[in-house]
Amino acid sequence: MTNDTMQGRFITFEGGEGVGKSTNIEFAAHWLHERGFEVIVTREPGGTEIAERIRNDLLKAHHGETMQPLTELLLVFAARAQHLLQVIKPALERGAWVLCDRFTDSTIAYQGYGRGLDQTTIHALKELVQQGLEPDLTILLDAPLDVGMGRAQRRGQSAGEETDRFEVEQRAFFERVQQGFQALAASEARFRIVDASQPLADVQTHVVMLLEEWV
Amino acid sequence: MTNDTMQGRFITFEGGEGVGKSTNIEFAAHWLHERGFEVIVTREPGGTEIAERIRNDLLKAHHGETMQPLTELLLVFAARAQHLLQVIKPALERGAWVLCDRFTDSTIAYQGYGRGLDQTTIHALKELVQQGLEPDLTILLDAPLDVGMGRAQRRGQSAGEETDRFEVEQRAFFERVQQGFQALAASEARFRIVDASQPLADVQTHVVMLLEEWV
Ligand SMILES: Nc1ncnc2c1ncn2[C@@H]1O[C@H](COP(=O)(O)OP(=O)(O)OP(=O)(O)O)[C@@H](O)[C@H]1O
Ligand SMILES: Nc1ncnc2c1ncn2[C@@H]1O[C@H](COP(=O)(O)OP(=O)(O)OP(=O)(O)O)[C@@H](O)[C@H]1O
Ligand SMILES: [Mg+2]
Ligand SMILES: [Mg+2]
Repeated sequence: MTNDTMQGRFITFEGGEGVGKSTNIEFAAHWLHERGFEVIVTREPGGTEIAERIRNDLLKAHHGETMQPLTELLLVFAARAQHLLQVIKPALERGAWVLCDRFTDSTIAYQGYGRGLDQTTIHALKELVQQGLEPDLTILLDAPLDVGMGRAQRRGQSAGEETDRFEVEQRAFFERVQQGFQALAASEARFRIVDASQPLADVQTHVVMLLEEWV
Repeated sequence: MTNDTMQGRFITFEGGEGVGKSTNIEFAAHWLHERGFEVIVTREPGGTEIAERIRNDLLKAHHGETMQPLTELLLVFAARAQHLLQVIKPALERGAWVLCDRFTDSTIAYQGYGRGLDQTTIHALKELVQQGLEPDLTILLDAPLDVGMGRAQRRGQSAGEETDRFEVEQRAFFERVQQGFQALAASEARFRIVDASQPLADVQTHVVMLLEEWV
């Protein structure tokens, strides 16, 4: 956060499909809550009623009509504008910890590296919507592609989840996404990479170590 | 249109609530169709399945959550990107006439003049989505506020229409919107103003006169 009037902590969890973002964010929230902090767990795209509606439009397979990459990008940022202004900023202003499951780094990785949209365009929209607000800490859960995809598949099968517009992409798409995350992590100081292929207990120990820096 | 490979005509109908946009666009389509042209009638926000879904998100009253003006703006342009790339550009490229009920001038009038969003931001999004494509002709149907609102109200009552997120705005909002349209018409050469308070037959005579210039 660049704004000094804000007191909370803004922490984002990033990474490809099935690496353990949702599992570790819940764990982190519990850990912080036990230490007496106000914690909000939220996700993107989504996080408000209106933004979740946009999420549905984004993820739904539209039979017979292809969603244009630029449409996808503008929808992601429309949802983000709503989420930031309605939920994230107010929470940070009252001193809460905001843990967010995916944020703009996912846009850069999926819509930029994955779909091939121009990075300058993405950064212009980021600036328009975030107005300089950045996460304090971004935890990138990184694991070989097959590890995450295998986990997501097993979870999807047992939960009977429907396949969304991203999950149907080719392997090359997810390889570009992963390279995108790694490039971001290498270039921005707020990133910490956690080896998500380890047993969950070890991943969690690493996550706690990272949180402790901010407590 | 600035692109020379396109042969069709892109004509937009603009103006406030109830001035007669839908009535006159149907009339114009019929007139052109009778003269043997391929004509497409479409509308914004909307015009494709995905864009119509975004339109619903935009117009629906969300009880308990206020849609942020920036969210509204990004949704409008998300729908427009989809509509332009899927419908408008392909139609123009094959030589059709595209008649569109509202376009970016409505965004400048409603989201800019009405909601007070920054014009520089709107123009940057316009450039991103339109890439220089502009209507050949924009017909602004202009009438005193009470005339259009009275017509829309009478039509709405008889058709049992639901009130949307824009129709609940205060009079001052619609006055700013109207001023916006008038300012645009004064500054851009593609505009023609039609006095929409006249009897429908006179409005239609004027519309035909404007179309004849492009036949
Ligand atoms: N370190 C781990 N070792 C083994 N299994 C794990 C580990 N972390 C998470 N899992 C399991 O893998 C599955 C996917 O985890 P989770 O849903 O948290 O991933 P995600 O990154 O949120 O996935 P998605 O991208 O689909 O939202 C879950 O069933 C979870 O219990
Ligand atoms: N010149 C006119 N004189 C009288 N009535 C008219 C005239 N033009 C349109 N109307 C009537 O006014 C009502 C509103 O017209 P219409 O639906 O075409 O307006 P609109 O600009 O499309 O409205 P909206 O902004 O709500 O979409 C209709 O019932 C239509 O028949
Ligand atoms: Mg998850
Ligand atoms: Mg109409």
